[in-house]
Amino acid sequence: MLSAMTIGGYLIERLAAHGVGHVFGIPGDYVLGFYEQLRQSPLQTITTCDEQGAGFAADAYARVRGLGAVCVTYCVGGLKVVNPIAGAFAEKSPVVVISGAPGMNERERNPLLHHKVREFDTQRRVFAEITVAHAALEDPDTACAEIDRVLHAALRYQRPVYLELPRDIIGQPGRSGHRPPEVHEKSDPRVLAEALAEAAAMINAAQRPVVLADVEIHRFGMQDDVLRLIESAHLPFAATILGKSVLSEQHPLYLGVYEGAMGLDDVRAYVEASDCVILLGAFMTDINLGIYTAQLDLGQAIYATSEKLAIRHHTFENVRFKDFVHGLLAAGLRPHADGARPAPPPPREFVPAAPDAPVTIARLFERVNEYLTDHTVVIADVGNALFGAADLFIRNRTAFLGPAYYASMGFAVPAALGAQMARPEVRPLVLVGDGAFQMTGMELSTIARFGLNPVVIVLNNAGYGTERHMHDGPFNDVLAWRYHKLPELLGVGRTFLVETESQLDAALDAAARHTSSYCLLDVRLDPLDKSAALGRLAERMARNL
Amino acid sequence: MLSAMTIGGYLIERLAAHGVGHVFGIPGDYVLGFYEQLRQSPLQTITTCDEQGAGFAADAYARVRGLGAVCVTYCVGGLKVVNPIAGAFAEKSPVVVISGAPGMNERERNPLLHHKVREFDTQRRVFAEITVAHAALEDPDTACAEIDRVLHAALRYQRPVYLELPRDIIGQPGRSGHRPPEVHEKSDPRVLAEALAEAAAMINAAQRPVVLADVEIHRFGMQDDVLRLIESAHLPFAATILGKSVLSEQHPLYLGVYEGAMGLDDVRAYVEASDCVILLGAFMTDINLGIYTAQLDLGQAIYATSEKLAIRHHTFENVRFKDFVHGLLAAGLRPHADGARPAPPPPREFVPAAPDAPVTIARLFERVNEYLTDHTVVIADVGNALFGAADLFIRNRTAFLGPAYYASMGFAVPAALGAQMARPEVRPLVLVGDGAFQMTGMELSTIARFGLNPVVIVLNNAGYGTERHMHDGPFNDVLAWRYHKLPELLGVGRTFLVETESQLDAALDAAARHTSSYCLLDVRLDPLDKSAALGRLAERMARNL
Ligand SMILES: Cc1ncc(C[n+]2csc(CCOP(=O)(O)OP(=O)(O)O)c2C)c(N)n1
Ligand SMILES: Cc1ncc(C[n+]2csc(CCOP(=O)(O)OP(=O)(O)O)c2C)c(N)n1
Repeated sequence: MLSAMTIGGYLIERLAAHGVGHVFGIPGDYVLGFYEQLRQSPLQTITTCDEQGAGFAADAYARVRGLGAVCVTYCVGGLKVVNPIAGAFAEKSPVVVISGAPGMNERERNPLLHHKVREFDTQRRVFAEITVAHAALEDPDTACAEIDRVLHAALRYQRPVYLELPRDIIGQPGRSGHRPPEVHEKSDPRVLAEALAEAAAMINAAQRPVVLADVEIHRFGMQDDVLRLIESAHLPFAATILGKSVLSEQHPLYLGVYEGAMGLDDVRAYVEASDCVILLGAFMTDINLGIYTAQLDLGQAIYATSEKLAIRHHTFENVRFKDFVHGLLAAGLRPHADGARPAPPPPREFVPAAPDAPVTIARLFERVNEYLTDHTVVIADVGNALFGAADLFIRNRTAFLGPAYYASMGFAVPAALGAQMARPEVRPLVLVGDGAFQMTGMELSTIARFGLNPVVIVLNNAGYGTERHMHDGPFNDVLAWRYHKLPELLGVGRTFLVETESQLDAALDAAARHTSSYCLLDVRLDPLDKSAALGRLAERMARNL
Repeated sequence: MLSAMTIGGYLIERLAAHGVGHVFGIPGDYVLGFYEQLRQSPLQTITTCDEQGAGFAADAYARVRGLGAVCVTYCVGGLKVVNPIAGAFAEKSPVVVISGAPGMNERERNPLLHHKVREFDTQRRVFAEITVAHAALEDPDTACAEIDRVLHAALRYQRPVYLELPRDIIGQPGRSGHRPPEVHEKSDPRVLAEALAEAAAMINAAQRPVVLADVEIHRFGMQDDVLRLIESAHLPFAATILGKSVLSEQHPLYLGVYEGAMGLDDVRAYVEASDCVILLGAFMTDINLGIYTAQLDLGQAIYATSEKLAIRHHTFENVRFKDFVHGLLAAGLRPHADGARPAPPPPREFVPAAPDAPVTIARLFERVNEYLTDHTVVIADVGNALFGAADLFIRNRTAFLGPAYYASMGFAVPAALGAQMARPEVRPLVLVGDGAFQMTGMELSTIARFGLNPVVIVLNNAGYGTERHMHDGPFNDVLAWRYHKLPELLGVGRTFLVETESQLDAALDAAARHTSSYCLLDVRLDPLDKSAALGRLAERMARNL
């Protein structure tokens, strides 16, 4: 770093060096100084309506771009992003939380400064529970090294981290001549060799090995390597719902999304009949495993993630995910024979059944499938949106985002903001229930302010449809907003009220053409209609109520 | 309790016994069973758009009614209320956070159940930082006793508490015959006697004693007692901004709000010239003390709160606030002589300056002052709203709510929901900046759904006005919503676009008459206009940036 650089400036430089171009958040007096430093930097600040939205946006940004950042004021701002950051932790998304804080010079005798909850470190202690590293930059001498340590952890573990900036520190000079250290972690070569020998022998001996691909492949930048592995050994592969589209769904070896009894029968049958399932970067979550309906024989499986390597029932320590995949590539696996296997059905042309046939969820997804292009990122919120989206045919790599494990509602609209900032060449398609939309949908305001143009489909079924199938009651109702009236309020946007199949058809065509603002489709659905996957899920979930 | 009562039922019974009639929140599968128990109980569940809104509503409910409750699902719901609950902690509002959780029977081998962040107790550990008591009801044998312990702490300390309900526990029978214990805490009689003797002598000897009243007087149910104390010894009193209206502002001994250099000069001069300031239930926060511009000589003060009793520079342990006030009452203080003192100016009749004179903040508050009645609760959000409201003339006790210490934006609209549910006979008047409205204002949807009718005044100054006066930049801009178009979206409500003084006058008259729904005034203000108090505050605050 330049010897004259301030601590705030160093943080900005390191973020930029890791590809961060946008910072989401809302200022406050404890962080205004840093906002001014940001304003004078190449990083763009994106102020949202509520800090919650900034948290989800930064999460999506990180999923797309490799690192994201949210910048908030002390406690009132920071504690509003606890839920989005918890989601980023659960689903492995490297978000840097930057919070302002009272200056060290203001803290003497522990005064009751505004925004303080209990102790000065209360907020830091909260974030310690939901991040992999945290630091309060209270000492200018160590601040730059702490920034290095914390950012390294975000990338190493692909999870959120927390940096707290006392406002009288950021303008101070960092240690002059400080440079980020280069960290190289290595696998234990003997353990790695043993694991590779066993894994390669297993795969080579197998009749019908299959790969199950999950998000860590993307998070650790392994998409190309895994693809080469798959192609060289001719391994058919499925994805989990959380990992959907981590590898291209157009690949000839792609089977579809595997999610136990929740998913498509033919994919399930194929994966579960395999004599060697290779789980790569996979989370064994309840939703990924179809609420534990998955019948995977771990006694015949290879399970490799950044946290754990297991072959059959034994585990190996000190093996990096990357080294293991590279090792398998180098092992020269034999190509497996081609055989009959499922493939995702290509989208069919959508012909409205009858001009005024009401829209069903199944038909909505058929029409959406036809709409998707190489330039669409699909972002699905919790509910019918997420489960129906499992069977969409995504054209591109990492072009599907959804909170498919943590399952916090309110993710999708702000995530569209983050995703499109991260990759301006795509146009997000947002699928969101009316319940989830009422939580954070007003971030369309931010989307409008910054001139983005996602297409937002509100699955308007008059309430918490997912829950109606588990246990219904008046607590599942929401007010009937007229979502298509939003441009009246925001002054921007193009919207469509969709009640019939032909309206749906026309609206999606028009939305595809109208690229100068966001488009919103208010799609009226029967409150009890559901996607097939959700039906199966809700039934399993209701058993535990 | 009835021997057949379930653990969930016992919790409901205890909440009801403490005056809770409404529970705010959003269901989820881990808490649906408890929602069903609630549905079958006398308690009403109020589902909001977002959990954040439920948190603020429960806080306001607690401030008005003495205890509030928010009920959410595991992590995705619970972690969204961290900020509102932190605010309740900071400002002493007893909110019971009830969260569903995975059943004990689902946790074996630590599976990755949806909504789980890190460990099963992650959410509990977060809430441990921002509550005074917490329990996860994992053992049916101790569950009822734990409920007692935790609810007692909420009332004892007037701060939030946390209860986590594994979903397979709530339906189990509690310990049969269990009854809540009666807890009586007592002051140490010798310490109390010594403190009282000293305090009474000081007050009696003083020429111009003055009381500074803050929220704890209300929280601990001491309003009548303090009033008797004030009247018997003829003590003029001021309130802090956080404690505004804790005693009636119509009382002849009332001076006004005291907030150091931020407040009115005559109140400041009177309080600071006192030879014996009696701070009752007061928080020494930066905002209460006018960002430390207050010149209170603690060497001549009596400082009594639920946490601390100090006379001059020494403190007394083990003296309860209540016992101290009762002791002073019993001490037979001499009545002090009447003298010249400030009094809040009664509202003047508002005559529009010129028909199309644009509205200024000062004039807006003058007109609002005229509007207030005995049946208004004023709820102010952070910003010009809160600081301008300091000088409103509140007609009733505890008829002013604002986050005057924690200062989280987004409080006011959901707080109106909570306050009106708690006291249906009042009509809230909400003062909220456009920035704060964009955070949680859509809870007007919930307000509409449950047929409430607050009057909401949006101080629409095109952004974060407060911050413009500290440090301006593009990060202080927000999108120009057309707030008056909200009924288009929600299908309910009466709104007014206000640009001139006469429009303001007419709109408030019309709003007073239109009681069948919420009314909203979109009041267009100059971005750089400010209330006098905010001007002084922003100037002080900018020095620390
Ligand atoms: C923040 C949050 N609160 C509550 C839940 C529990 N929950 C899961 S699905 C669901 C209903 C979703 O409703 P909607 O968004 O309208 O979609 P639909 O189920 O109708 O397709 C709820 C409340 C959750 N997942 N996240
Ligand atoms: C949740 C939260 N985020 C950020 C802040 C910092 N902050 C204090 S005042 C303010 C601006 C408020 O704007 P607005 O609500 O429009 O009211 P105005 O200041 O214009 O009167 C901000 C952003 C805060 N207090 N709370």
